[in-house]
Amino acid sequence: MASHPPLPGNGVWNRRHVIDSASLTLDEVEEVLRTAKSFSHILSRPVKKIPTLRGKVVVNMFYENSTRTRTSFELAAQYLSADAINFSVSTSSVKKGESLIDTAETLAAMGTDAVVIRHASSGVCQQLVNYFGDRICVLNAGDGYHDHPTQGLLDLFSLKERLDDISGKKIVIVGDILHSRVARSNIHLLKLFGANVHLVAPSTLLPMQIEALGCTAHTNIEEALQDADVVMCLRMQMERQRAGLIPAMREYIRFYSITHERLQKFCKPDVLVMHPGPMNRGVEIASDVADNKEISLITNQVTSGVAIRMALLYLCLSTPAERSGLERFQADLNERMAAV
Amino acid sequence: MASHPPLPGNGVWNRRHVIDSASLTLDEVEEVLRTAKSFSHILSRPVKKIPTLRGKVVVNMFYENSTRTRTSFELAAQYLSADAINFSVSTSSVKKGESLIDTAETLAAMGTDAVVIRHASSGVCQQLVNYFGDRICVLNAGDGYHDHPTQGLLDLFSLKERLDDISGKKIVIVGDILHSRVARSNIHLLKLFGANVHLVAPSTLLPMQIEALGCTAHTNIEEALQDADVVMCLRMQMERQRAGLIPAMREYIRFYSITHERLQKFCKPDVLVMHPGPMNRGVEIASDVADNKEISLITNQVTSGVAIRMALLYLCLSTPAERSGLERFQADLNERMAAV
Amino acid sequence: MASHPPLPGNGVWNRRHVIDSASLTLDEVEEVLRTAKSFSHILSRPVKKIPTLRGKVVVNMFYENSTRTRTSFELAAQYLSADAINFSVSTSSVKKGESLIDTAETLAAMGTDAVVIRHASSGVCQQLVNYFGDRICVLNAGDGYHDHPTQGLLDLFSLKERLDDISGKKIVIVGDILHSRVARSNIHLLKLFGANVHLVAPSTLLPMQIEALGCTAHTNIEEALQDADVVMCLRMQMERQRAGLIPAMREYIRFYSITHERLQKFCKPDVLVMHPGPMNRGVEIASDVADNKEISLITNQVTSGVAIRMALLYLCLSTPAERSGLERFQADLNERMAAV
Repeated sequence: MASHPPLPGNGVWNRRHVIDSASLTLDEVEEVLRTAKSFSHILSRPVKKIPTLRGKVVVNMFYENSTRTRTSFELAAQYLSADAINFSVSTSSVKKGESLIDTAETLAAMGTDAVVIRHASSGVCQQLVNYFGDRICVLNAGDGYHDHPTQGLLDLFSLKERLDDISGKKIVIVGDILHSRVARSNIHLLKLFGANVHLVAPSTLLPMQIEALGCTAHTNIEEALQDADVVMCLRMQMERQRAGLIPAMREYIRFYSITHERLQKFCKPDVLVMHPGPMNRGVEIASDVADNKEISLITNQVTSGVAIRMALLYLCLSTPAERSGLERFQADLNERMAAV
Repeated sequence: MASHPPLPGNGVWNRRHVIDSASLTLDEVEEVLRTAKSFSHILSRPVKKIPTLRGKVVVNMFYENSTRTRTSFELAAQYLSADAINFSVSTSSVKKGESLIDTAETLAAMGTDAVVIRHASSGVCQQLVNYFGDRICVLNAGDGYHDHPTQGLLDLFSLKERLDDISGKKIVIVGDILHSRVARSNIHLLKLFGANVHLVAPSTLLPMQIEALGCTAHTNIEEALQDADVVMCLRMQMERQRAGLIPAMREYIRFYSITHERLQKFCKPDVLVMHPGPMNRGVEIASDVADNKEISLITNQVTSGVAIRMALLYLCLSTPAERSGLERFQADLNERMAAV
Repeated sequence: MASHPPLPGNGVWNRRHVIDSASLTLDEVEEVLRTAKSFSHILSRPVKKIPTLRGKVVVNMFYENSTRTRTSFELAAQYLSADAINFSVSTSSVKKGESLIDTAETLAAMGTDAVVIRHASSGVCQQLVNYFGDRICVLNAGDGYHDHPTQGLLDLFSLKERLDDISGKKIVIVGDILHSRVARSNIHLLKLFGANVHLVAPSTLLPMQIEALGCTAHTNIEEALQDADVVMCLRMQMERQRAGLIPAMREYIRFYSITHERLQKFCKPDVLVMHPGPMNRGVEIASDVADNKEISLITNQVTSGVAIRMALLYLCLSTPAERSGLERFQADLNERMAAV
């Protein structure tokens, strides 16, 4: 019988919250990836459920719509047997003017163990952590233009599943860097693992003081894609055009869309393409690129997202002692299985 | 102790999808009915839960509102211990322009085993099956004017619970046949079991080439109801009046509403009345007819709906081998119980 | 090992419904409080789940928005292992004109064991009980201006946790008494336990014939707060101002807001402050009063709400015989545990 890889419990992880990617250390990220790897096996089993977080309550507080990310967290919680509650902001006391802290305090008083929060304002998660301390676990599912750490981690996990070592690889992020929390999360994590990060966008969509991020910036796509190992597309928000930040969508497509032709002409032959979804097919990415399973990691990213969120829920909602007990139990079980 | 009837496992069923009623064979429908019969016992037990689909994920993707059908599928999944997720279209990437296939691909990549889909466009389910093959199970919960197979099956189940054999029975479907996927699903299944199907409606609400359906069409209600064994009412969509398809709701009620008077005057004495719900009381059906438990099967139809959906989820999400193993286990258990 | 207090089963409770607070007897309320006390321990355990109501279905039918109360019931059901379904009124057949009774009949036919209902019309719960009898359990989560029994019970529970005996205590309810179902529920229950209930509000927000309620009414806050043991704030509905019932919010705040200054100047030194939430900080209650854990019971009220709802679901969905069996089992288990 194929045995489940042992659950990690080496004690590196002591966090109750994941609110940004910039403060995660290399050791912490590696523990997350190792844990996610272990959980990713569950997703391909006929029975996708383990009792690890039974009796824990995870509340999704999404102040911005995102069924994709919310469903990913909801399933991650359910696969670990936690109860997942969707706190619908549109029908809640929030509309009656209740503050975020009061809403969260109410959820905590009802027995909530973790809140997963998406909010348009940067810094909302830090505000919750300042208020609650360790009483409740806070996971950032995207705050303003600031950070989206689970997206950064799942992108890293997907890449390392395919390339193992990404140090020295040229990774090009294409699109609206200026407004992208996905880009911010990725830049930190990719550089932590030694990647060579390049950014490319029309100059109106590049942040100021880009050197501070430790990346190379381009406005010319051909120059940026030269010998690239990985191309990460960002979603183009259609409303940017109205805001005058890009001349016209047609122009953006002409100069920045990731097509097979561009990939073949400039990138490494085994280049990989990523996209956080949902895609605007034919805008930031050509449809045949998205659907080419040889080079596109897009579907893998979605699966990795569930595994990463399982890992974070598990690490933040259990103690090192519990994890180490589970590891011993698992090792013991594997031994007995092997002996049969 | 009353033993649970053995779960069926005779290997007739090899489908991963139920997207129409027209392609179901007599053997397949009988296996669905037998399975639903077995599951219907669970609904009257104090503990309405069996572990059959533990660790499976069922996602409800409802592009048209229908709390009734969605809740029925949600409970069916929960009674079998599956996790049911409601994918809310109104707050999802669908609004951001994501295609149905991309949305479903995302759900599949997250570990979803089955999608239950309701959509305004006919053929959407077939499109999903063409794309996914057997990777994900697709259940049609109503697509456009095309089909609503679980409604047809639950109506059949409710009828056969009461009449056992429906062959040769005169079954009259009354109302907006033209726009009704419920009528389409019922016509095929009732005829498969040898019923004599009659349709009655104002001529503007009858489909062209009605003979191709193998039914007898009427515009006169008295003629249609003559010696009827069963009368199936359809819900009258109030907006049809505005579209000019019926002269006035008052006229429709006068000529087509199913009242006790009409039933007594024309139908068989033990006539049965059905309605898929939600009812417009006083429009297509008189309130006292709906509430007369002697002749109305309306509440039974709702209960049958849960049993039919449990059966389809079970049959589509398990293999014949698993089902046969479960059957042997069940038989063995029953024997031991009897021996005590 | 700390043993769980035995579950109550003394047979006082024979109700299947809780639709008002006025008809609850002292014995019944005491059984609810005792049961809630027992369940409240679960909320502070690492695994917040007991299998008591496994295989039962609880449906939340909220015709008025209230994420707070809905989530409280949803979690209460889940902690007892029941399946909780949210019946979303905004996307349901209700919009298609279906009556409340037909909707509830549909839910009952699907196997629902209990409905939790919030509705703008007083008397809706009684209507459901008249129709369904004991076939389905009905819990009132707030109907019109009539009653909100779970709020009254949770307020009583929170108070008795702190004060034990409330007989003879002066309890002052401040705010929009006229439109408050919270006030109505509290008045009955507090008086049942011998409290001395005072009401204070602008005269436009006090009900007529206030003497019939057995309370003392005031329009002057200073007079009302004199020697108060407990101050219960009500939420001020901002729309009352537009309706001309209060001159201006600024005036209301000036004359009725509960501030530290007012509490210190008039009330007993160990006065307690309560609020049903969500709060308008700076309107009916000053922010520093709400946040002062010495005197504010607001967070405790939220936790008590879950315990009270667990108790009511348990009492209404089980039989005295089942409860007494569970009690014996629990006592036996505790004995064995003690012997180890």
